[in-house]
Amino acid sequence: MFSFKIQAIQGRARAGIFTTPHGDLETPLFAPVGTQAAVKTLTPAQLDELGASLVLANTYHLFLRPGDELVADMGGLHCFMQWPHPILTDSGGFQVFSLAQTRKIDDDGVTFKSHIDGSTHRFTPEKSIQIQENLGADIIMAFDECSDPNNHGYSKTAMERTHRWAERSLTAKKRTDQALFGIIQGGVDPDLRTTSAQFISSLSFPGIAIGGLSVGETKQEMHATLRLVTQLLPENKPRYLMGVGTPEDLINGIALGVDIFDCVLPTRLARHNAAFSSQGRLNLMNATFAHDQHPIDETCDCYTCRTFTRAYLRHLIVAKELLAGTLLSIHNLHALIQLVKDIRTSIINNTFKSKVPGWLEKWHGNAERKSTILHKEAG
Amino acid sequence: MFSFKIQAIQGRARAGIFTTPHGDLETPLFAPVGTQAAVKTLTPAQLDELGASLVLANTYHLFLRPGDELVADMGGLHCFMQWPHPILTDSGGFQVFSLAQTRKIDDDGVTFKSHIDGSTHRFTPEKSIQIQENLGADIIMAFDECSDPNNHGYSKTAMERTHRWAERSLTAKKRTDQALFGIIQGGVDPDLRTTSAQFISSLSFPGIAIGGLSVGETKQEMHATLRLVTQLLPENKPRYLMGVGTPEDLINGIALGVDIFDCVLPTRLARHNAAFSSQGRLNLMNATFAHDQHPIDETCDCYTCRTFTRAYLRHLIVAKELLAGTLLSIHNLHALIQLVKDIRTSIINNTFKSKVPGWLEKWHGNAERKSTILHKEAG
Repeated sequence: MFSFKIQAIQGRARAGIFTTPHGDLETPLFAPVGTQAAVKTLTPAQLDELGASLVLANTYHLFLRPGDELVADMGGLHCFMQWPHPILTDSGGFQVFSLAQTRKIDDDGVTFKSHIDGSTHRFTPEKSIQIQENLGADIIMAFDECSDPNNHGYSKTAMERTHRWAERSLTAKKRTDQALFGIIQGGVDPDLRTTSAQFISSLSFPGIAIGGLSVGETKQEMHATLRLVTQLLPENKPRYLMGVGTPEDLINGIALGVDIFDCVLPTRLARHNAAFSSQGRLNLMNATFAHDQHPIDETCDCYTCRTFTRAYLRHLIVAKELLAGTLLSIHNLHALIQLVKDIRTSIINNTFKSKVPGWLEKWHGNAERKSTILHKEAG
Repeated sequence: MFSFKIQAIQGRARAGIFTTPHGDLETPLFAPVGTQAAVKTLTPAQLDELGASLVLANTYHLFLRPGDELVADMGGLHCFMQWPHPILTDSGGFQVFSLAQTRKIDDDGVTFKSHIDGSTHRFTPEKSIQIQENLGADIIMAFDECSDPNNHGYSKTAMERTHRWAERSLTAKKRTDQALFGIIQGGVDPDLRTTSAQFISSLSFPGIAIGGLSVGETKQEMHATLRLVTQLLPENKPRYLMGVGTPEDLINGIALGVDIFDCVLPTRLARHNAAFSSQGRLNLMNATFAHDQHPIDETCDCYTCRTFTRAYLRHLIVAKELLAGTLLSIHNLHALIQLVKDIRTSIINNTFKSKVPGWLEKWHGNAERKSTILHKEAG
């Protein structure tokens, strides 16, 4: 039901096809985030037009609202949100640690209070898998604990727990039409990361996720960790870098052999009136755009850039028209999805290496100086 | 540049074609409201898919933000908001009286304070026409004063001022590629309405609008006034009933010979989680819909009803996902646009009269008991 075929390799960058019950995923790919079973402000028809293939949904959020059993009753996530292509759910671990209130972690699981109504709940590896089986995504994740990257002692404890929970997640899994990915943790410590990469790779996961990055470490730490970890992973399994990132992160990640990315950044920036562009990140509320008849980015062929001026987008923002968020989400998602598609083509055409400097140059002004907890705020 | 051809008449109901510089309008028609040069939450592509033909934009709002001169600099409203089909702007009169603060009316015009920043501005008939010429819609409106329907003395004063302002609007008009419609006022007083209908009809307007209805009078008063006024209008000019309405209002209005309608109701209801349906108006936040796998309306073929369950829409509402507003706006606008298209077909096929009872029955539960100031709240 699942298979991963590598079509082309250039350096460590790979172009592949990951087959799932809801269709083939051409990797590398960027997955929009639909936290609450909806990519914020966009219809599935608009997502389809953007060329999105995989969509991520959050287990923590959907467990709390509307409830995984309700989603199962409605025929599962694909049917509920009407996304006929592949879906990935995370394990809920990250959100429990970043969003929920007054959590208590023990070796068996985590007890936490809902950020919505304060009600008390408990996640264990078994519970996370049960919820994800109710949700019914194509790719599901082992329950893990994401540590503070700057706290070695905690990183070690969290990594060891993550390893035990990975084994329990594998044991708990019943459905055969879902691919369960294991998650590597270990903060920014090379020894811990090596141990974790080797351990998770030794288990029978059909795919491997790299967790605990883009959570507050420096860009240098993130790249060094990623460079180390990707060298240790089996070639024949898809690699998923969770919650990353910026255009630069995607280019660098693919160069290091990552296949799958997701990030809330495109839709989150849109809600803050910001847009990726080849002239750097633009805040379209800026008064300098009031009479600007150019599109956000002359080099972009998304619906927003084909259709609207910066002047109109600024007007929508100033006038508090929600359409602004929709149009900026379309542009920002298109920018990342198309960038990764272009990179994929270059890997197949054997032009990736020669094109990387140009891409890094083009997208330079869109980088964050420090990686931030982007998936902490949902969607 | 403008012409109105009647294709079929059944009773007083008419099917016609109003030719404008941006294309032919098939009447009767329902126009979505794009107060601030955007129909709330919808892209022009989504509006096009809905079969919208004419879109209304508000002169008062666009004068204040982003300014009519900016819109002119950007190539006019069609170019600015990227709506290639016909556009109608109102005169700003109604909003000055309903939205602006501390207004002072004299025979020459109205001085008012912006509801956005309290800044002072003045509208006269000449100023309203100048703004509307800057905006560049296909159909523009004479500057008018809308009175309280329950205050006869004020209705008479406002009507007389509206008449003088109608003449000044005609004189002020310079562009030949815009059709200037006159507006009938007179509250709910039959004598005043007769006087106003006769006076406005006697001027050289290529179309006639009926103002001052759906502003707080009873349904009975509204229908009686509409019945009276439409009898007095020339057959060969399009008739526009401003700010109306509900499905029932549209059916009744067309039966009395109205050609053009606009109303914020579909998008406004969407923002309040409500949807038109053949089972009456539904509030989709209601917990009874939590597991409901039906579409909003089994008889509707809009994108929302073809795609999503009530359960999913309720989830989006409860989870505060903005996509809910988009999907409900699509449904509510489709309901009215399609109802009027179906009525148009029936007039041409000579089946209108036989179908009216069924339509009134189907849409009965969506009526308001009292007409309300729907265009007071924008969009």
